[in-house]
Amino acid sequence: MAEHNLEHTIALLTRTPATLDALLRDLPEAWTRRNESENTWNAFDIVAHLIHTERTDWMPRARIMLQSGESRTLEPFDRSGYVRESQGRTLVQLLDEFARLRKESLAGLRALDLRPEDLTLRGRHPAFGVVTLGQLLATWAAHDLTHLHQLSRVMAHQYREAVGPWAAYLGVLKCAGHSSPA
Amino acid sequence: MAEHNLEHTIALLTRTPATLDALLRDLPEAWTRRNESENTWNAFDIVAHLIHTERTDWMPRARIMLQSGESRTLEPFDRSGYVRESQGRTLVQLLDEFARLRKESLAGLRALDLRPEDLTLRGRHPAFGVVTLGQLLATWAAHDLTHLHQLSRVMAHQYREAVGPWAAYLGVLKCAGHSSPA
Repeated sequence: MAEHNLEHTIALLTRTPATLDALLRDLPEAWTRRNESENTWNAFDIVAHLIHTERTDWMPRARIMLQSGESRTLEPFDRSGYVRESQGRTLVQLLDEFARLRKESLAGLRALDLRPEDLTLRGRHPAFGVVTLGQLLATWAAHDLTHLHQLSRVMAHQYREAVGPWAAYLGVLKCAGHSSPA
Repeated sequence: MAEHNLEHTIALLTRTPATLDALLRDLPEAWTRRNESENTWNAFDIVAHLIHTERTDWMPRARIMLQSGESRTLEPFDRSGYVRESQGRTLVQLLDEFARLRKESLAGLRALDLRPEDLTLRGRHPAFGVVTLGQLLATWAAHDLTHLHQLSRVMAHQYREAVGPWAAYLGVLKCAGHSSPA
């Protein structure tokens, strides 16, 4: 069961870079550079955040959990870290970078050759306390989806007025966002 | 301004089939055939719904508005129509069909060679009353995004338990859905 889920997780993680690429590459900046309100993220920021998590969160945390278990608390994740990933870069550069990093991460994950029982290995999260490797890897996939969810909402927001009365039928325009606590 | 938006709308509409294809083609059925609860849609149903709207909603309605203006009320949209689109078909077949239909729709839209002032042309919606062609076309793009938003939520739901305590940080798991009235 656990092994089965890991293959599902990898299947999803493998597809995210191409999904974002198909949606965002060369899309007009009216879609990709506009956000929902002050201090919210646009598409560009979201891809930069995915790059930052790819560098600092998933595989680095998995390796710490495998090496040190509960004895070493994971570093808190820096939610503002995306800013330095995006400075002076184009969205096309970010999409390419994310695809490259994800490919490396997945090669690293496969190289670990995890057995089903490895997914029950424990680590220590700075806020949650004990977590398992399986939970971390499932979160990696769900995190891709939460940002696809956010991205579709941010983009739809740009047409909030343009759709006129049809706004009543468009669920995405009723989504208030569900941001994480800082 | 109106003309500018039409190019943005077409840019988004052009990318949706490849986006869904990149995400869903050959993804395990644990992601694509599971829904959120009884009588809700899975990924397969969502693509079938997009096919049904492509056949019956956007360009057919645009043509009625261009030909008859407010004098002919648009047909109500059949929300259960997706069922017959999906019977006996695989997800790969649905993805291919959606891509083909969208390409045809966009060729038809371009062939209309709409001028900015055409977007203010009016039609009559069965529930809303007077609507404009520009609102219909903007809704077409926002409708793609509302279903990408739904799709990411339905898929993330499958990992609701697997992520353990990280559920607290994943906004998509807090989204209650925002379904349209029937």
